[in-house]
Amino acid sequence: MTGACRPPALSLPILMIPTVLLRETIQRALMEDLAGGDLTTEATVAEDTRAVGRAVAQGPLVACGADVFALVFATLDPSVRVERLVNDGTPVERGAGLWFVEGSARSILLGERTALNFVQRLSGIASLARQYVAALPPGSRTRITDTRKTTPGLRALERYAVRCGGAHNHRDALGGGVLIKDNHIEIAGGIRNAVERARARAPHTVRIEVEVESLAMLDEALAAGADIVMLDNFAPEALRTAIERARGRALVEVSGGITLERVAEMGALGVDVVSVGALTHSARASDIALDVTRLGS
Amino acid sequence: MTGACRPPALSLPILMIPTVLLRETIQRALMEDLAGGDLTTEATVAEDTRAVGRAVAQGPLVACGADVFALVFATLDPSVRVERLVNDGTPVERGAGLWFVEGSARSILLGERTALNFVQRLSGIASLARQYVAALPPGSRTRITDTRKTTPGLRALERYAVRCGGAHNHRDALGGGVLIKDNHIEIAGGIRNAVERARARAPHTVRIEVEVESLAMLDEALAAGADIVMLDNFAPEALRTAIERARGRALVEVSGGITLERVAEMGALGVDVVSVGALTHSARASDIALDVTRLGS
Amino acid sequence: MTGACRPPALSLPILMIPTVLLRETIQRALMEDLAGGDLTTEATVAEDTRAVGRAVAQGPLVACGADVFALVFATLDPSVRVERLVNDGTPVERGAGLWFVEGSARSILLGERTALNFVQRLSGIASLARQYVAALPPGSRTRITDTRKTTPGLRALERYAVRCGGAHNHRDALGGGVLIKDNHIEIAGGIRNAVERARARAPHTVRIEVEVESLAMLDEALAAGADIVMLDNFAPEALRTAIERARGRALVEVSGGITLERVAEMGALGVDVVSVGALTHSARASDIALDVTRLGS
Amino acid sequence: MTGACRPPALSLPILMIPTVLLRETIQRALMEDLAGGDLTTEATVAEDTRAVGRAVAQGPLVACGADVFALVFATLDPSVRVERLVNDGTPVERGAGLWFVEGSARSILLGERTALNFVQRLSGIASLARQYVAALPPGSRTRITDTRKTTPGLRALERYAVRCGGAHNHRDALGGGVLIKDNHIEIAGGIRNAVERARARAPHTVRIEVEVESLAMLDEALAAGADIVMLDNFAPEALRTAIERARGRALVEVSGGITLERVAEMGALGVDVVSVGALTHSARASDIALDVTRLGS
Amino acid sequence: MTGACRPPALSLPILMIPTVLLRETIQRALMEDLAGGDLTTEATVAEDTRAVGRAVAQGPLVACGADVFALVFATLDPSVRVERLVNDGTPVERGAGLWFVEGSARSILLGERTALNFVQRLSGIASLARQYVAALPPGSRTRITDTRKTTPGLRALERYAVRCGGAHNHRDALGGGVLIKDNHIEIAGGIRNAVERARARAPHTVRIEVEVESLAMLDEALAAGADIVMLDNFAPEALRTAIERARGRALVEVSGGITLERVAEMGALGVDVVSVGALTHSARASDIALDVTRLGS
Amino acid sequence: MTGACRPPALSLPILMIPTVLLRETIQRALMEDLAGGDLTTEATVAEDTRAVGRAVAQGPLVACGADVFALVFATLDPSVRVERLVNDGTPVERGAGLWFVEGSARSILLGERTALNFVQRLSGIASLARQYVAALPPGSRTRITDTRKTTPGLRALERYAVRCGGAHNHRDALGGGVLIKDNHIEIAGGIRNAVERARARAPHTVRIEVEVESLAMLDEALAAGADIVMLDNFAPEALRTAIERARGRALVEVSGGITLERVAEMGALGVDVVSVGALTHSARASDIALDVTRLGS
Repeated sequence: MTGACRPPALSLPILMIPTVLLRETIQRALMEDLAGGDLTTEATVAEDTRAVGRAVAQGPLVACGADVFALVFATLDPSVRVERLVNDGTPVERGAGLWFVEGSARSILLGERTALNFVQRLSGIASLARQYVAALPPGSRTRITDTRKTTPGLRALERYAVRCGGAHNHRDALGGGVLIKDNHIEIAGGIRNAVERARARAPHTVRIEVEVESLAMLDEALAAGADIVMLDNFAPEALRTAIERARGRALVEVSGGITLERVAEMGALGVDVVSVGALTHSARASDIALDVTRLGS
Repeated sequence: MTGACRPPALSLPILMIPTVLLRETIQRALMEDLAGGDLTTEATVAEDTRAVGRAVAQGPLVACGADVFALVFATLDPSVRVERLVNDGTPVERGAGLWFVEGSARSILLGERTALNFVQRLSGIASLARQYVAALPPGSRTRITDTRKTTPGLRALERYAVRCGGAHNHRDALGGGVLIKDNHIEIAGGIRNAVERARARAPHTVRIEVEVESLAMLDEALAAGADIVMLDNFAPEALRTAIERARGRALVEVSGGITLERVAEMGALGVDVVSVGALTHSARASDIALDVTRLGS
Repeated sequence: MTGACRPPALSLPILMIPTVLLRETIQRALMEDLAGGDLTTEATVAEDTRAVGRAVAQGPLVACGADVFALVFATLDPSVRVERLVNDGTPVERGAGLWFVEGSARSILLGERTALNFVQRLSGIASLARQYVAALPPGSRTRITDTRKTTPGLRALERYAVRCGGAHNHRDALGGGVLIKDNHIEIAGGIRNAVERARARAPHTVRIEVEVESLAMLDEALAAGADIVMLDNFAPEALRTAIERARGRALVEVSGGITLERVAEMGALGVDVVSVGALTHSARASDIALDVTRLGS
Repeated sequence: MTGACRPPALSLPILMIPTVLLRETIQRALMEDLAGGDLTTEATVAEDTRAVGRAVAQGPLVACGADVFALVFATLDPSVRVERLVNDGTPVERGAGLWFVEGSARSILLGERTALNFVQRLSGIASLARQYVAALPPGSRTRITDTRKTTPGLRALERYAVRCGGAHNHRDALGGGVLIKDNHIEIAGGIRNAVERARARAPHTVRIEVEVESLAMLDEALAAGADIVMLDNFAPEALRTAIERARGRALVEVSGGITLERVAEMGALGVDVVSVGALTHSARASDIALDVTRLGS
Repeated sequence: MTGACRPPALSLPILMIPTVLLRETIQRALMEDLAGGDLTTEATVAEDTRAVGRAVAQGPLVACGADVFALVFATLDPSVRVERLVNDGTPVERGAGLWFVEGSARSILLGERTALNFVQRLSGIASLARQYVAALPPGSRTRITDTRKTTPGLRALERYAVRCGGAHNHRDALGGGVLIKDNHIEIAGGIRNAVERARARAPHTVRIEVEVESLAMLDEALAAGADIVMLDNFAPEALRTAIERARGRALVEVSGGITLERVAEMGALGVDVVSVGALTHSARASDIALDVTRLGS
Repeated sequence: MTGACRPPALSLPILMIPTVLLRETIQRALMEDLAGGDLTTEATVAEDTRAVGRAVAQGPLVACGADVFALVFATLDPSVRVERLVNDGTPVERGAGLWFVEGSARSILLGERTALNFVQRLSGIASLARQYVAALPPGSRTRITDTRKTTPGLRALERYAVRCGGAHNHRDALGGGVLIKDNHIEIAGGIRNAVERARARAPHTVRIEVEVESLAMLDEALAAGADIVMLDNFAPEALRTAIERARGRALVEVSGGITLERVAEMGALGVDVVSVGALTHSARASDIALDVTRLGS
């Protein structure tokens, strides 16, 4: 029940969030649409009608969500059979078949919209992530990551979609890493204080990251022993200087207003990480249709 | 605790979904980000530090989400005080203050990202809805509506955002109305059969809508007594004919690939309803920042 | 997993609420009875004892709840086998077998009371609904419906039972239709205002219903374009007049103190809809016993 | 937040189930009705309209549910004020005021139906329980109890209503007491075996009860040391004999088809306990209306 | 799906808490560990790798938790196969195999820690319970019981572990029995008052227990008709006297500071029940390892 | 609502897990004990009786759980007032007052056991953690940490208790860090492969840790660039060598069978981290009593 995607630049499978953890999310989504039944299907579709459905890309996209698609229908009706036609993470062209479902026509019609709402969103994110990764220079070691700017309730799924697009994840939550920002610095009384306190408290398994807005702050952060520095809205020249100063002393992450156009530049500069909020907060849904055909007479 | 927005074209308040019903959604969103605590804030911010935060529009947008913003912080810490600076549904310019929060610095920093993730998404939808409504000819009686293509788990919130943008809602779920599509027609054995069965079964409080793909189907639907006809991807000429034939016999809804550009045309044709999936599945998040300032020394 | 009942007057199957949506309700019901285990069964029934149980009507009733009966046992123990002996909606006599269960004796004894509590209530409602429907004159087109006066937590199930008795559903919730009552009228400043506002706000997929208490109010409602008028406690003569005035202009619903005796009169008058709160708030449970027999020696 | 009722025959307060434990039940009930908002109230009631509501008995009844009534409104809107006009357990006549609510008109209209659905059901049960208690001879020490035949999801509330009617509770669940029935006896290989096993396993804090269907079984149960014997459907003469034999050796409970008429007879015979499933599975809802009045102009 | 353990002194199976009721507990436990995926397994274990795991006792213990062990893996991945090698309640030596799991290597590694956390705790409690039971004199009829001092959220499981160790359960919750303590006595105005009120209110299916701290209080409790007396911290001589006085009039329970050493003394004195909080609040986890072996090449 | 503890070696407050996230845990714990009401308190304590309770240490301990103690009572009854007498993390002697509660006697008696079950467990863990920390040589920089061997459902609370004892946390979950163990190494085909894959996949914010069982494996791990090495059950001499080899190249963590006696040795060797499963899986509950006194007459 764990899915896998094989994104372009990697030969390793990606661990789907365990499907057990999706059950509540899917149950809630089905409740939204079905708590009052389906007036139309009740009236028009006999209980024993059977059908097949084929999810088809209506444009180029990176497929994402096979497990969710399957689990929506399995939650409604364990007798429905679902098959994946492509692995998650695969780029496909318009017209490509993605997933296949067969069973009770009622169950397929009841689950159609909910299943599509999930996979259209996830494929949209995977597709956008892939665009960012593809914009890097060939051979670049720069990593594109997501942020915590995810849709409330769907973070685990959206982070998976980012991985399916060939990008990487940032820390998953406030308890998953240390990221010292301007407010923390001000309240702690300076970068050194903030870093020392974080080092004293945080698990030894996480790195300490500091967001800096100037070269002076960068120097302070490096002196304080930050493991990662996040350069926020640096001008091109300052950015170049900053990267040189940090090289070998800390990982360099760039954030803030990174468009697809500026990604190539970041790669060329040898930035380690570019974090992009738009991956999750502003991806457009991929257009995917479910072609349903009645079986038998 | 029920919010109100005053969208441009209407003088009536809009009923927020009762906040009691948001509690679980907000609780789940907070759990995603906070279940492991906040390593950074723990280390750097003393328990008695107090602060204020001001949510500021980083570009023009339609404000949406005051109640959610307030409830995120209230859920974390009942002693935090939140104030709305503009009503939901108000269009504002870059730099406008939207909501204000005051209290424990820890509580504000812990809730910041979750609160913003909600309101950026909702304001993004409201802003897009308003663009569609504004694209109608002056005085038009055409209604822009959403669809069931909403983010899983957030349907009630997104429908509210649509209303805040001055647009309308379509049926809320499969149990909230009858919409007979091609699959139902095929399985029921024709439009007349499908409509009759739906009429016999559905509550007398809902209207019967039929999706048609040709003038022949339209005629069948009208003859069968459909209350609403949905014209799906009609060519301009056929569309004009269809509207004429349906006038006075059924409400006319148009759906499928409606861009901002085509909205004016729909209004001019006197279409009753234009339903737009993109309102919820492809809105970009509005850019909103929370400016936090420490209080006292 | 979707059940079907074939109520007397209709040849169409009725859509059960998807069983996935019943899981939480059934889980909660089982928790009430079983959270502390079953002291008696633990002590007296060996783990490998097998048994069969047969649910038997102890009087005439309309069967209702096959899916719930099955899901209670399946939730406790997936290896239990359940069979339905009659379809939901079937009227049976005393002594008729309804459902059959076979498996671990422990599982059957643990689920017995919870399963019966559900089906006795649902069959009671279906039986009462059928009485109301049967009281209509032959060939009558009048529709008997439920109301929102349902048992908290069981609305979807009780609405299903109403359908199994051959009656119909009214709107399912406050968001499922517009029903303007005296308080709304008073606050909105008159019927016309209330109807216009509702028309401007509600989805175009629902009808506007107005509750009226006099002929004068009826005239106002019809003039305001109400799609349905609900006549509340009209005297016989006024009722006759009201129906005449409304004919062809709005659907006529009658509500308030409708006994079985008065149903025939409503049918004769050609009322479109009679809504009856007693269907769900005052049905007596049908008497159903589970005859359990140990298997083997 | 814990309520109290003072039923006629007792001077002790009755412990309400802690309101914290009702929150989920009330939340679910509100979701059923409000998840899609309230289309009518949105359109017709301005946000700042204030109102009062008074719950009034439409016939004689025993009041029950003050805490639930209050908690429904408090859950929707903490600023609503609720007052109880009579204590739970008080018998009142038609026209009596029961509870009072004041606050936002929207909040009152949104909660009205859900609040009434609870209290009408609970008051119906309390009223029926009181009828049974009142049917006992004056000075009788016989105790009327409920059974486990409660509405799924509402057991704790319905048991409270039974207490408010002056009756008592039986064991609350399968883990709350030992009740050996025919199936247990058959599988355990006789009454003695079953009682011994139960004694060896059950907590020392509960009594062992055996259901018997004949005098022979009664003798066996008494010989096996049963603490309570339940006489199931005994004929009048056998009942008299059974009670004599058991006196001083075990508590005597009578069950099965006990109508209001037969209660007096049970009391006269000196039965200790009469358990009545109808208290919870077949009570009719009490008729209670909420008279809402707009405040101010 | 219901487990059984055969503890040393009893030949009866013990009813596992129905597994349906464990689902939420197990789901929550898995969420704690897995909500963010498993970074290590994702990177190192291919999706199609298969493995077996064998849970092995690292010291002598009483096995407990077979059903929980199985359900953790089944929840993650229904295709995993689990087998129990010993029955719950069986004492084993170091090196003994307890349970066996076979399936996807990913699923086994993901569930390992959660499964072990459960069974180590439960086996620890069963092992400690068995030590207490074994400390009783041969042939003793004294019963060792748990208390309500259980781990929040795990009461049902811990009570099961106590039974698997051959000990017994006390009342399961505040609603499962009457236990009158000093505060109740003081507030009620004396033992007689407290007992009478409890008798008048509690279900007839439970016994009335009174905690006493002196011989004088004991006499009062016996005179008031207490069914059980709990002697709290009595000195040895007073204890002897108390037991003599209570014999034949009430069950005698001893509580407070009962070490393993003092258990034999209690048994020799003929105490009926010894309740031991340490069984659940201070048991050390049993040491159990899961030996995982990759299958195939 | 966020608590703080001031453990001996640190002057920084520790962030409590946000209380919002505890609500469900506390609600579930209260349900276990109270779902059936409190038979004894109902009968003996009048509704308007007021009382105070004082939690008192029955032996030396490190206080932990002030927020949980308060939230248990606040959940039951918002009108109860709770005060903390010592900060979490404070070591106290027998007899010390810890927390104070004042309000309805019923509410205090209903919450007593649940509140104590939490704080006794948490204080037990904090006290054991402190013993480990105190066993380190003066001035030692070695860090004692917990593991993932926590009680299912209580991980966040137990990790907080560890911090209150002056120890540290390890990664919080499988998604919170990379820890490559023998199974991962075997399946990945060696340490280098495993580390490289983990580096390529894991967020850049976490460190890569490898568990090694020999000096050869240690060398491989260091060569592969592991950030942390965990030495599992090394003999003393090998341990010394291992620490020397790793110094300056990776953090050194020691795990497996670390008793209080061996902690000093680890500190003297300059180990960076000692992880101790016993902190959470085998702590004994601290003995804490709640002294309740009735107020007024």
